[in-house]
Amino acid sequence: MNEIKIFSPATVANVSCGFDVLGFCLDSVGDDMVIRKIEKKGIYISKIEGFDLPYETELNVAGVSALAMYNSLDLDFGFEIEIYKKIKPGSGIGSSAASAVGSVFGMNELLGRPYNKTQLTEFAIKGEALASKCEHADNLAPALFGGFTLVKSLKPLEILQIPSPDDLFATIIHPQIEIKTSESRAVLPNQVALSDAITQWSNLGSLVHALHTSDYNLIKNSLHDVIIEPHRSKLIPHYEEVKKVVLKAGALGAGISGSGPSIFSLCKGIEMAKNVEDAMRNVYAKTGIEFDIHVSKINIEGIKIK
Amino acid sequence: MNEIKIFSPATVANVSCGFDVLGFCLDSVGDDMVIRKIEKKGIYISKIEGFDLPYETELNVAGVSALAMYNSLDLDFGFEIEIYKKIKPGSGIGSSAASAVGSVFGMNELLGRPYNKTQLTEFAIKGEALASKCEHADNLAPALFGGFTLVKSLKPLEILQIPSPDDLFATIIHPQIEIKTSESRAVLPNQVALSDAITQWSNLGSLVHALHTSDYNLIKNSLHDVIIEPHRSKLIPHYEEVKKVVLKAGALGAGISGSGPSIFSLCKGIEMAKNVEDAMRNVYAKTGIEFDIHVSKINIEGIKIK
Repeated sequence: MNEIKIFSPATVANVSCGFDVLGFCLDSVGDDMVIRKIEKKGIYISKIEGFDLPYETELNVAGVSALAMYNSLDLDFGFEIEIYKKIKPGSGIGSSAASAVGSVFGMNELLGRPYNKTQLTEFAIKGEALASKCEHADNLAPALFGGFTLVKSLKPLEILQIPSPDDLFATIIHPQIEIKTSESRAVLPNQVALSDAITQWSNLGSLVHALHTSDYNLIKNSLHDVIIEPHRSKLIPHYEEVKKVVLKAGALGAGISGSGPSIFSLCKGIEMAKNVEDAMRNVYAKTGIEFDIHVSKINIEGIKIK
Repeated sequence: MNEIKIFSPATVANVSCGFDVLGFCLDSVGDDMVIRKIEKKGIYISKIEGFDLPYETELNVAGVSALAMYNSLDLDFGFEIEIYKKIKPGSGIGSSAASAVGSVFGMNELLGRPYNKTQLTEFAIKGEALASKCEHADNLAPALFGGFTLVKSLKPLEILQIPSPDDLFATIIHPQIEIKTSESRAVLPNQVALSDAITQWSNLGSLVHALHTSDYNLIKNSLHDVIIEPHRSKLIPHYEEVKKVVLKAGALGAGISGSGPSIFSLCKGIEMAKNVEDAMRNVYAKTGIEFDIHVSKINIEGIKIK
């Protein structure tokens, strides 16, 4: 096998109470990528469609992660990467993570899987760092492993796969505004009230238990964020209104996807997820702000060969 | 049935990363209590052995919780309570919680179980509040439900039962010193670093996952407390030394039991738990401070009829 076509999924990080550690994987939105073995040594980006991204390997997220992996091996051939980008950069649903994992996953498959998924995450972190200016794995882990993941620690990298109930769907709205990473970081407090921290970890512990026991009601009661949302939600137009109508439409919960501007909700069943889609559309249709909406089953498989 | 004899177990609250929400139940240490139906209306403490506690119903933890339950019913008879106290008050392993749950559990059994365990916890909270000057359930919940419990919220009261691996044991040392509740509260910060809070909730989420998957190695990697332990451990003599030798002896982790002064450890298997007992004894034997040590399997049943 000299060429592989893969689907690299979008992901939702943070998930309300799980700031900086939790994430889940989507099914209906993701990039396509082709990875090809070539005679010439090195990593080359040969095609980019969908969005205007750099072709220089060292400036391209998929290129940087691929290089990190390539340099760990001693190969007498190289790889060519084609990127068919469908996840909008800056949308808050793991666009850079999809690129970062796509190249290393594809290369690993072509090489006969010398590395496990945790090792692939290590390489992908290098690519992700190019985009987000810091090393983190909260989108990479769900993209590679699928389902819900908890990044227990970065050094050493430890990723836990949390089970996902069968009938769990996500609806995500992406308002097409730009939130600068620097701004979304600047609004976060350095210190938080101990009482709020206790509420947050109680909810995260409960959410992990709820996912293990497929307890939708407890998922609903756990999807709260008393630490980050009060600050970052101010950067997202109509956030409170969206959240209100989404919950009224029956969603288990709603929150900021990653650092925004996308807003995710979790739903039991496709019907509820579609009702939530309508509710989100109704709010944003009146605003004049362009938006996309994605409805997706939770993708328990993660990145895959097409 | 007019009389019932019960075993009301000691418990460990907080459990390192689970401050204010997590707890587990012990098997080898607990109070015996007798609850008896009597013709005279009201709640009466008729016998107390072991420690010097008040006989006045309104001043006795078991009396107060019993009264809360009794007053919710319209009965034409009363109850007499005998307390054979074995858990030392102030030891940090849920002495007051054992009293608080014992009376209501026993009455509920004699009455044909009009209340479920969550409702019993609500009554027991009233007794616990007499002892600890605030309403909390982190010892009550494991005493009543057994195993590991997570008190997701107090209002409304929501208690989750987290599974416990088969071969999990605890070893607990109780140094016989007094730490005033006011002092153990005063050392806690109102504000904590967001980065520390993230570490703590990552560990709690991981611990819940580890308990669900019987992953002893992950239990070990999750039993860390970066928020409370740095402050409260200073109030416990030789804390660091005990922790060091306990971990060296193979324990999965060690931490402050409740608000101290007891130090708990969790171990895989009875042999490791006994090695930890020896290690704890070796440290405290040199200090001149009196101490007790308890080795116990995790009690998944909780409070029970003897």
